Amino acid sequence: MSMITRSKHACFGGIQGFYTHDSSSIGLPMRFSVYQPPQAANGPVPVVFFLAGLTCTEETFMVKAGAQRVAAELGLMLVTCDTSPRDIELPGDRENWDFGVGAGFYLDATTQPWATHYRMGSYVLELRDFILANFSASADRVGIMGHSMGGHGALTIGLKHPERFQSVSAFAPIAAPSECPWGEKAFSRYLGDDRSSWRAFDATALVEDGQRTSALLVDQGLEDQFLPNQLSPDRFESACRGAGQALTLRRQSGYDHGYYFISSFIADHLHHHAQLLR
Amino acid sequence: MSMITRSKHACFGGIQGFYTHDSSSIGLPMRFSVYQPPQAANGPVPVVFFLAGLTCTEETFMVKAGAQRVAAELGLMLVTCDTSPRDIELPGDRENWDFGVGAGFYLDATTQPWATHYRMGSYVLELRDFILANFSASADRVGIMGHSMGGHGALTIGLKHPERFQSVSAFAPIAAPSECPWGEKAFSRYLGDDRSSWRAFDATALVEDGQRTSALLVDQGLEDQFLPNQLSPDRFESACRGAGQALTLRRQSGYDHGYYFISSFIADHLHHHAQLLR
Repeated sequence: MSMITRSKHACFGGIQGFYTHDSSSIGLPMRFSVYQPPQAANGPVPVVFFLAGLTCTEETFMVKAGAQRVAAELGLMLVTCDTSPRDIELPGDRENWDFGVGAGFYLDATTQPWATHYRMGSYVLELRDFILANFSASADRVGIMGHSMGGHGALTIGLKHPERFQSVSAFAPIAAPSECPWGEKAFSRYLGDDRSSWRAFDATALVEDGQRTSALLVDQGLEDQFLPNQLSPDRFESACRGAGQALTLRRQSGYDHGYYFISSFIADHLHHHAQLLR
Repeated sequence: MSMITRSKHACFGGIQGFYTHDSSSIGLPMRFSVYQPPQAANGPVPVVFFLAGLTCTEETFMVKAGAQRVAAELGLMLVTCDTSPRDIELPGDRENWDFGVGAGFYLDATTQPWATHYRMGSYVLELRDFILANFSASADRVGIMGHSMGGHGALTIGLKHPERFQSVSAFAPIAAPSECPWGEKAFSRYLGDDRSSWRAFDATALVEDGQRTSALLVDQGLEDQFLPNQLSPDRFESACRGAGQALTLRRQSGYDHGYYFISSFIADHLHHHAQLLR
């Protein structure tokens, strides 16, 4: 499988790179980005995947979060993928900012026309293996984090694959997507109307259904414009408490849904991952 | 003079805001942004102005540089302005990315049609006064910094107004614009063909002509794609050495012209300002 390097930039003594490769799970070229900390030059380092939110790309987190400074200190590699396939047009895939392009929801669609290429759930696992094979990353020290739709992705993929991701955290995740407008719209189109099939892609339902992972860290801004209708941290917290899943949910007064919120707390999240991946 | 708040975001315990006001020097509305650190709630704090480069806006630095974390630690306010007037169309102002819209060069144009509104030199001084009047900033503790075209702006405005800006620094500045393609194109159109009038907007010429300021900090990436033809740090260094202007010019191996370079060294620059503004 070939990889094209689109650009590389020195950054905090390491390398910020942007790449394209052919994805077998998506069946199309996919873009991703990697921050290699200075320590990666001396041997394999722990790696943390970041899954971005609606409308974002593989660039957003690397440009806006200020994460590389902390990653360079802690010796963590950072990887972000795109939020959907890009190199195909499907009917209606550009009509909504919260469905289709930029809104893959990190799941494998089962209904047409989405089922062929909208397979972001499998793609995250494929990219994990690709990074471990092609960069200086430790196979048994891999974390996953994300924001909003990507927080949903990080929690669900982390809960389903604790052997592949040893640390998990999220910023303002869509924590019970089966019961919010964003999730209902996406799941009914990607997965169909049988709601029982949605539970495998819903962090709250997964915890209720017995999935477990390492101690979770979640930050949620209390001025987040999507908190009242879309995110459901309280439901997720209840499920974790009921099931004995360790969770630190921090409610951050004054903060909204954007990257000024993420950048303010990214250091805490990377320390959380570094500690679990030590 | 009224000010419209376009948005505000909690950020590292302070407030990241985006604003529009009517500028008397430009004769049009202008956009700017302010980061108020947590310490500003308790009384006036030092303030550092950042002038951005070609094609940037008042948002770029605040989104990409990772500066707020350090500003919150040091108790510095940060201010950025736009890079040109936006609310008018002039013939040819959108034909080039290095002239016209997004390329005001922080000078007062003297030739028509530019002389009426392209007055970014005066605007920076107007915005300084506006910030001191409307935000919790100390009038005698004001710094100025910038990148590329904005590094040129910071050096020239800082050298001409040492009583208004007590600290000055730059990333990859256009340090001798009278003798590089970007500067010759902009100056010949904004200022006309009399090259003697250009010296007041050229950091190297200003130092040669006797202007002085506090000890300067300049960072220059050695893999900067514009270093060979546009930036001239060596000429500026020679002029400073010949004139006794204190300058620390750091040549950073491997770094290019972008914000991954700026973010890697922004902490050093803000510490430089904080020390001089103490």
